[in-house]
Amino acid sequence: MAKHLTLACAALALSAGSAWADLRDDALETFRALPSTVPAVKDNPITPAKIELGKALFFDPRMSASGVFSCNSCHNLATGGDDNLETSIGHGWQAGPRNAPTALNSVFNEAQFWDGRAADLAEQAKGPVQASVEMANTPENVVQALNSMPQYVTWFGEAFEGEADPVSFDNFAKAIEAFEATLITPAPFDAWLNGDDAALSEMELAGLEQFMELGCSSCHSGVNVGGHGYYPFGLIEKPGAEVLPVGDKGRFAVTQTVDDEYVFRAAPLRNIALTAPYFHSGKVWDLKVAVQIMAESQLGEEISDETADQLVAFLGALTGELPEVTYPVLPAETRATPRPDNSFVGQ
Amino acid sequence: MAKHLTLACAALALSAGSAWADLRDDALETFRALPSTVPAVKDNPITPAKIELGKALFFDPRMSASGVFSCNSCHNLATGGDDNLETSIGHGWQAGPRNAPTALNSVFNEAQFWDGRAADLAEQAKGPVQASVEMANTPENVVQALNSMPQYVTWFGEAFEGEADPVSFDNFAKAIEAFEATLITPAPFDAWLNGDDAALSEMELAGLEQFMELGCSSCHSGVNVGGHGYYPFGLIEKPGAEVLPVGDKGRFAVTQTVDDEYVFRAAPLRNIALTAPYFHSGKVWDLKVAVQIMAESQLGEEISDETADQLVAFLGALTGELPEVTYPVLPAETRATPRPDNSFVGQ
Repeated sequence: MAKHLTLACAALALSAGSAWADLRDDALETFRALPSTVPAVKDNPITPAKIELGKALFFDPRMSASGVFSCNSCHNLATGGDDNLETSIGHGWQAGPRNAPTALNSVFNEAQFWDGRAADLAEQAKGPVQASVEMANTPENVVQALNSMPQYVTWFGEAFEGEADPVSFDNFAKAIEAFEATLITPAPFDAWLNGDDAALSEMELAGLEQFMELGCSSCHSGVNVGGHGYYPFGLIEKPGAEVLPVGDKGRFAVTQTVDDEYVFRAAPLRNIALTAPYFHSGKVWDLKVAVQIMAESQLGEEISDETADQLVAFLGALTGELPEVTYPVLPAETRATPRPDNSFVGQ
Repeated sequence: MAKHLTLACAALALSAGSAWADLRDDALETFRALPSTVPAVKDNPITPAKIELGKALFFDPRMSASGVFSCNSCHNLATGGDDNLETSIGHGWQAGPRNAPTALNSVFNEAQFWDGRAADLAEQAKGPVQASVEMANTPENVVQALNSMPQYVTWFGEAFEGEADPVSFDNFAKAIEAFEATLITPAPFDAWLNGDDAALSEMELAGLEQFMELGCSSCHSGVNVGGHGYYPFGLIEKPGAEVLPVGDKGRFAVTQTVDDEYVFRAAPLRNIALTAPYFHSGKVWDLKVAVQIMAESQLGEEISDETADQLVAFLGALTGELPEVTYPVLPAETRATPRPDNSFVGQ
C-alpha cells in the first residue's frame, strides 16, 4: 500500500512538473534568467579595481555636502537596495519627490529613474549627489574631497589606469556604475527558468501563470521583470490622487510631450517584496494592495483575493540573493578635505 | 666591501633596536596590547549567533523612529567608527550635543560616553536609540518592530536560547554589545608592544617617548591608550570657549559634584587619526592642533613643532585594522512593522 502511494505521489509530482512545462516555454519567451556573470556596461570596462573603488564611493557619506548621506543611505543594500521610506529623507531633512528605486539589478534597466531620464547608471549616479534635497553636493566639491584623500587618488589611478586625469566626476560615476553592475540577485524564479522544477511552489507557479494571462507581463517582462518601456499610470483607470499625485506628471518632465503625462517606466519587479512602500509616490505599503491597484488601473481587472495572493507569491519568488559585500574601510580625511556643511535648510 | 656595509647596517639596526628596549619595558608598564580574541563581557556571554544578530541591529535604520538612522550612521565602521562630524546629525536634522566617539575598541573603555554615564556598551546602546536628537525611538516601538519581522524573532530565539522572552529591549542592547566587542583593531603599536621592533618607525618611537615623558600617558594609558579615569579639561589652563563650551559641564551632569565640572573621561586614543574632529565639542579638525591644545591645557607645556609632529606620528601608529565585516542582509518588513515617522521637528 505504502509503495503504491509513493508511486502515485511520484506520478502526481511528475504530472505537476510537466503540467507547468508549457508555462516555462511561455515564460522563456517573456522573461530571461539573470546571467551568471557581471554584465558588460557601455563605455565602461568593468575591472576589480573599479568595482572596489565604486563600492567605497557608494558607501562614503563624505560624497554628500553634509557628510551624512551616502548612496547607500537611500539605496541600502541591507534592505533590498532601497530605504523603505515613502520618499527619501535628504539634506536638511527634506523629503525627496519620489520613492527611491532599488539599486539591485538596476544595471538591467533600459534607463534609470522612474521617468527614465538617465540613460545609464553612470549618468544616474551624478543626479542624487547634486540634488539639493538629497546629497546637495557639487561635482567640484566631490572632486576636491577625493583629491584630498591620497588613498582615493591611488585607487582612481588604479581603476582608470593610463588616464591623464583619473580623479574626475565622470570617473566617480563610472566607478559607482561598475560596483552597481555587480549587485545581481539570482532568485528562485531564475532557478526555475533555468530548469529547476522544484524552485517554485505550486502557488508561485499559479501566480506566474496569472501574471502572464492577466497581462502584467505585457509591461513587466525581460530580465528585470520590468525596467523597460514607458506606460501611463492609470492606463485604464487612474488611481486616486494620493497614489498618483496630480503634480508629478512623470515622463512629461523629460519629453515635454502631452502623451507622456503621468507616464512612468514600468517598474522592475525583482526584490519587490523587500522594497515597500510602492509606486513613485511611495503611498502603498502592502504588496497585495499594490497588485490590486495595478490590476485595476492598468488592466481594468478586479482580481479575486486568491489571484492577488498567487500574484504576491510569484513576486516573492523574485526575491534574490545579494552577492556578499564586505563593508569597506574608507580613506581617512585630511586637512584639505572639505568640511561638512550641516546648515539647517529653511532655518 | 658590500659585505662589510651589510654587517655595519645590521649592527646599526641592532643598536637602534636595543636603544628602544628600555622604552618597551616602560611602555609595557603603562599600556597593554590588544588581546588576540574577543574579550568576555560582564553578564553577556558572547556567541556567534549573538554577534550576528548584533551586527544586523547595528546596521538597521528601522531601529530609529524615522527609519533613517542606524547605530552605524554615527558610528560608521567605514570611517573609524565615528561620523567625522562636529556633532552628529539626528532626527529632524537636529545636531547632537557632543562629538560621536568611536565604537571601535569601545569594549575596553571603563565606561561609555564622554562623561562615562553608561557603565557598559549594553547600557550605552540604549541611549542614542531613545535620544530625541538622535534616533528618537522608544523601547516599545523597537520591540514592536523586531517582533513584526519573523526573521528577527528567529534570530533573537537563537541568540538568547532558552529565555522565556528573547525579543526584548535589554537583549537588543546585549546583542549590539556582543557585536561591538568584536570591533577590535590591532595596530602597529600592538605589534611593537608584542616584540616586533620593525613595527614602529624612529619617528613614531620618538613620539611614544615624548608621550610618556611629557605625561600624556598619565591619563591616556592602558589597553585603549585612554578610556578610563576622569579629568578636568583644562587641568592647568582652560582652552577657549569654542573648544570647551561653557554650557557643557561634562561629568558634573552625572555626579552633581562641583569637583566634576568640565570633567570628562580621558579619551581613548586608538584610531584617533581617523576620527577628526576632536574633543567633545568637535571643534578641532587637525590632530596636531589637538595635541598642542592638550599639552597646554592638561600639562602646561608649550611643545615644539617637532615634538608635536612626533606625537602625531605615534598616534598614527594607533590606527588599526578592523576585522572584515560582511554587510548584513536585514529581515524584510511586514504589514505589522511600525511605519517610519519622518515628522519635521520644529516645523
